[in-house]
Amino acid sequence: MQPFKIHILGCGSALPTARHAPSSQIVEIRGKLFMVDCGEGTQQQVRKSRLNFTKIYAVFISHLHGDHVLGLIGMISTFGLNGRTAPLHIYAPGEYEELLNLEIKTFCGGLDFEVVFHAVDTNKQQVIYEDRSLTVESIPLCHRVHCCGFLFREKAGSRHIRRDMIDFYNIPTSQINNIKAGLDWTSPEGEVIKNELLTSDPDPVRSYAYCSDTRYFPELAERVKDVTLLYHESTYTEDFKEKAVKYLHSTAKEAALTAKNANAAQLMLGHYSQRYNSDQPLLEEAKQVFKNTILANEGLVIDVRIR
Amino acid sequence: MQPFKIHILGCGSALPTARHAPSSQIVEIRGKLFMVDCGEGTQQQVRKSRLNFTKIYAVFISHLHGDHVLGLIGMISTFGLNGRTAPLHIYAPGEYEELLNLEIKTFCGGLDFEVVFHAVDTNKQQVIYEDRSLTVESIPLCHRVHCCGFLFREKAGSRHIRRDMIDFYNIPTSQINNIKAGLDWTSPEGEVIKNELLTSDPDPVRSYAYCSDTRYFPELAERVKDVTLLYHESTYTEDFKEKAVKYLHSTAKEAALTAKNANAAQLMLGHYSQRYNSDQPLLEEAKQVFKNTILANEGLVIDVRIR
Repeated sequence: MQPFKIHILGCGSALPTARHAPSSQIVEIRGKLFMVDCGEGTQQQVRKSRLNFTKIYAVFISHLHGDHVLGLIGMISTFGLNGRTAPLHIYAPGEYEELLNLEIKTFCGGLDFEVVFHAVDTNKQQVIYEDRSLTVESIPLCHRVHCCGFLFREKAGSRHIRRDMIDFYNIPTSQINNIKAGLDWTSPEGEVIKNELLTSDPDPVRSYAYCSDTRYFPELAERVKDVTLLYHESTYTEDFKEKAVKYLHSTAKEAALTAKNANAAQLMLGHYSQRYNSDQPLLEEAKQVFKNTILANEGLVIDVRIR
Repeated sequence: MQPFKIHILGCGSALPTARHAPSSQIVEIRGKLFMVDCGEGTQQQVRKSRLNFTKIYAVFISHLHGDHVLGLIGMISTFGLNGRTAPLHIYAPGEYEELLNLEIKTFCGGLDFEVVFHAVDTNKQQVIYEDRSLTVESIPLCHRVHCCGFLFREKAGSRHIRRDMIDFYNIPTSQINNIKAGLDWTSPEGEVIKNELLTSDPDPVRSYAYCSDTRYFPELAERVKDVTLLYHESTYTEDFKEKAVKYLHSTAKEAALTAKNANAAQLMLGHYSQRYNSDQPLLEEAKQVFKNTILANEGLVIDVRIR
């Protein structure tokens, strides 16, 4: 199965702490790296992770709060000093474009690569990126500013060749790609062998939803229905529900409710308020509603895995 | 003697490394904190240093390269979240004002304090800040963009009362402040006692010059003549002189030459290229020209001390 991993670079919230860096993750899928959010200091977190800077193809910014975006310009500058030539794609709310251009003009003279800005309509759920292996959809969220999550969805792979059957029917190598693509095989004697006999099902399709920052709203579960791994912010425990309501954030229990109603396979919590010296209370609260929950933590690498 | 200390928060150069954070320092003088430069991640470095965020009165930005300024907006945002109300003064090249305003508008909605921007003319050596205790002068430097250093100079304190002489002449307490201010004392019998008999000299005046980034040029020594502590960039050793020339940086030897010609009491090196796994070769090179040299390092706190 092709790698589909999430690398947690930062999972703190607005106020930086000694325990958590601001929001940033890398989605690694079939050899490509996609960054989601890029808080201050993210380039140092990438360095620690030993991921290859040059493989970062695009950066998706959920919303324009500093803890999700202030590391981007420094990283772009470093890309330039490191001699990057491949274009870098930025997907972000349209309001960012003017500022980003001014930052690049001021701090990144003479870049040898293009920064391609894609304005994301945070009010619509739609495919904003697509290649041969995956699609990325925007997921409208409810926060104090325009904000959306991102849903990474694998495309179905090709069927798996059954080596034993290929040998049995003595099928030439030249035909393998056709059979992988779903064609039947007609033997020199004219016998038609159904594709289902020669192949097994492709790997099941996996998906990852990044949902930060947002207040709880029931419809979100529908937007990420049947997702394999759901990252959902849980800034507070229920005893700070008032703050969650005031600042349009979620509690751990609410994150778990969304995971449950979405029929997610697994839930990962993150975006913890700086008030917690331990994130365990958040985990315990969520587990009471949705058992298969884990805590994001800097340095964590998790496989997106079917149940 | 009143405290006059330099706290090193970062002394790396453009490319961040595991060893050094980008440029930032705190000048602590008579209870006030002044920040000089503010590279990405500086707020985390302040946190580690255990300095009091709220005492940072002003930030001086030498030039608009990312490794000297990209941490500022995150720090302003954190000041806001922490409930700062005191104005924050920013001294920087004028080109920064438009960008800073747009950053504040985008990322720092509803600050409860004022950010006061002071455009610095980097081509002139002049007093840009003054209070009862000190002056700060701009020092024109030669770099790829408008750039200046900063010279922090104590004002002379008042003369020290000689307790033994006050007792000897039986001078009432009410007169102490006048005598401190330099007045003579006339006894009830009409005898005039010269102030020099009643007081000793004030503490010698100390100064600190921050010079980063710059190519070597001999006139700089005149601009920081007789400085107590000189911080001078030393991006390279002499074997990378070609790069120093190309990028308008200095070698350790050149930094030491400036210290020597300026008759500085002490030299501190910094702004090391990421190519060095150890900064010792820079130190050794400088010491051959100017013996009283030290290396800046994150976490270092150094007293500005008269020889």
